[in-house]
Amino acid sequence: METLDGAHKIDGDSCNISDTGDTGEAINDSIIDSIACATNLDNDRIGELIERGTIRKVYGTDSELWQFHKGTSGIEAGTVVLCGESPEVYNGFPKIRRALMLDACIKNHFRNVDLVAVEEKMNGYNVRVVRVGGEVMAFTRGGFFCPYTTQKARQLLDMTFFKEHSDLVLHCEMVGPHNPYVPKDVYDVESVAFYIFDIRHKGSGIPLSVGQRHEFINQYDLLSVRLFGTYSINDAAPQIWEIIKRLGPDGREGVVIKDPMMVEVPIKYTCSQSNCTDLAHAFSYYHDYGQDFLYSRVVREGYQTVEWDESDVEFKERCLRLGESMLGSMAETIRKKQHGDDIYEDIQIKTDHKTAREFQIHLRRMGIGVLFKDGVKQEDGEYIFQIKKLRMSTNDKTDSILSGDVW
Amino acid sequence: METLDGAHKIDGDSCNISDTGDTGEAINDSIIDSIACATNLDNDRIGELIERGTIRKVYGTDSELWQFHKGTSGIEAGTVVLCGESPEVYNGFPKIRRALMLDACIKNHFRNVDLVAVEEKMNGYNVRVVRVGGEVMAFTRGGFFCPYTTQKARQLLDMTFFKEHSDLVLHCEMVGPHNPYVPKDVYDVESVAFYIFDIRHKGSGIPLSVGQRHEFINQYDLLSVRLFGTYSINDAAPQIWEIIKRLGPDGREGVVIKDPMMVEVPIKYTCSQSNCTDLAHAFSYYHDYGQDFLYSRVVREGYQTVEWDESDVEFKERCLRLGESMLGSMAETIRKKQHGDDIYEDIQIKTDHKTAREFQIHLRRMGIGVLFKDGVKQEDGEYIFQIKKLRMSTNDKTDSILSGDVW
Repeated sequence: METLDGAHKIDGDSCNISDTGDTGEAINDSIIDSIACATNLDNDRIGELIERGTIRKVYGTDSELWQFHKGTSGIEAGTVVLCGESPEVYNGFPKIRRALMLDACIKNHFRNVDLVAVEEKMNGYNVRVVRVGGEVMAFTRGGFFCPYTTQKARQLLDMTFFKEHSDLVLHCEMVGPHNPYVPKDVYDVESVAFYIFDIRHKGSGIPLSVGQRHEFINQYDLLSVRLFGTYSINDAAPQIWEIIKRLGPDGREGVVIKDPMMVEVPIKYTCSQSNCTDLAHAFSYYHDYGQDFLYSRVVREGYQTVEWDESDVEFKERCLRLGESMLGSMAETIRKKQHGDDIYEDIQIKTDHKTAREFQIHLRRMGIGVLFKDGVKQEDGEYIFQIKKLRMSTNDKTDSILSGDVW
Repeated sequence: METLDGAHKIDGDSCNISDTGDTGEAINDSIIDSIACATNLDNDRIGELIERGTIRKVYGTDSELWQFHKGTSGIEAGTVVLCGESPEVYNGFPKIRRALMLDACIKNHFRNVDLVAVEEKMNGYNVRVVRVGGEVMAFTRGGFFCPYTTQKARQLLDMTFFKEHSDLVLHCEMVGPHNPYVPKDVYDVESVAFYIFDIRHKGSGIPLSVGQRHEFINQYDLLSVRLFGTYSINDAAPQIWEIIKRLGPDGREGVVIKDPMMVEVPIKYTCSQSNCTDLAHAFSYYHDYGQDFLYSRVVREGYQTVEWDESDVEFKERCLRLGESMLGSMAETIRKKQHGDDIYEDIQIKTDHKTAREFQIHLRRMGIGVLFKDGVKQEDGEYIFQIKKLRMSTNDKTDSILSGDVW
């Protein structure tokens, strides 16, 4: 059954797969049957997608989980399928499109809606937390099982939610200094925290309304991303500009604008300062990330200055901020190399030794070169592990240019 | 015979192709024979490259000319082959690599050389002028025959050069306000002019030394790009920084650094202002060009500020210049669209009606959408034709965003 955002619903009745045994071939067949049944794609197609590597085994768990590495046939990238007798689908989170001319975009995009809910878009890592069989697990945006995020989710979220609502998936932004993916100090979070921004049904991917979501969040004492308010379509843009102008200098990212009933898909809009912070991060590792981040962020700045009809002073501030974000961090990286230092990203996690070891294996499996330092014990019995993510491409390129190679 | 820059020399004796007649098949065979013989590639390979579109017919002339649309098998992109009884090769101009850390790069790249010649890199259009059979023709960098450039070259260059040195190819920068490819007002050129920066042998692509080139230029009263001087390897970088700092504010592009004997391949180095002017142009048509131009220019700025060890004030000036170059021109484009104007690039040529018509066909063949206005007669009997190059992708994208579409 096609749903609003192109996800697929499990037809419960027809999806009871009988276990066909334990031998290699048989398991393969039963996996193909499970995924086919769960996604409403046919077996040949699933076989093809596995062969091409579009569908891959999820490692690091004992459950028979398979992930969609890319989006295909209306299924979002990052979708995870639990194979077995009762296959389940944990849909990848659909990409949220971006407004550039905010006022026009709200009026156009939400033309069938009277009001929009404006929520904070937090700058963290988008994770899904879900009950898989008897266990709660956390998956990254790409559909990887993350042992660290899973341990933190089990520690920080009320597990009774998942027992009582095993058909729901929590979509959270994991934020805080001990988030190893996007470490940030701008939120009032000591280690890590999970802020819920969406709750969706397994299988269909259909989201709860904003109101229903907040009821659940209150009931289970979960954290919610901030709801700034609900505005009429005509008032929304000016209200959001005010919000954005407050959030920017605080180092916060921006907002997501939602149909309160979640029938229309949300759109996002971000602060100039956040664009620039992203660019600064990207240009610290300019040869690993620079190119991917650059163009779209410059374009956002161009539209924002026009829509805000900025004065010459404001415009020059924006231009300087944009230029400095790139050149400042890049220059720092080159100077580090000139002084003989390697270029890496410092991250940290706070966990036990077993999870740290599993997380290290997880990063290695993702192809990320890391150096772990021994953990330092904390008062609560957990350990802080300092991790250096090596940025090999930037290291190598900078070495080469400093030693006189041509570009 | 492999030459320095990977081009191929014609073996004169073995390249006399007998004309095999006038029918379709036969002509194809004789063309394949010609190109194979001229390039030292085998016939099957040439057949394959023609089939793939890597080698294509050059349109707009009566000569049997074929161009290498992409570089392949050691042959530069843009290489043109004259087919027939005595096939000839007009090599594509080899890409000049760029220095980012200038001092280290000169010392590394020219380690087998005592002195380097420093010449101006002019910001125009790189064209080759060459005698093809009995006629002088001009080819663009990509190996297209340009009727307008050809007419101007015949008008402005001393044709006896080509009679007396039919084995040489003039590599020129076509500059001036009536250069339709890269119109610039920064040079003291009223209409267009051809500045020679290289003279190379047909077939082998081997360049004359800097000295030999200047002898020819003087002898035939041609124009040369400016030679700033010849410097020792240790002095070169500081001398070039001085030059670059003078050229930048004048809107000029930069320098090319050459082994005077032209045994080592040249390298280039450009002014920050020129990077920014390029970006400003690119972001006027941000959805046509923005992405291609962006990353490499930001990287150049990053290295230059580090190598020049800039003060905080100089660094901020650079950042502002970089940011303004992009956002200023992009904002202007968006505002134009807001006022209902279309986004196009104004160019002009000064020529006769026949050439203008041929040039129009040439542009159409290149897939460039243009609007020609009737020519306005000049005192010298030529006409100025105003041409609008439409920038469809930027037009369409800006319309879409202004009307409220998401990015």
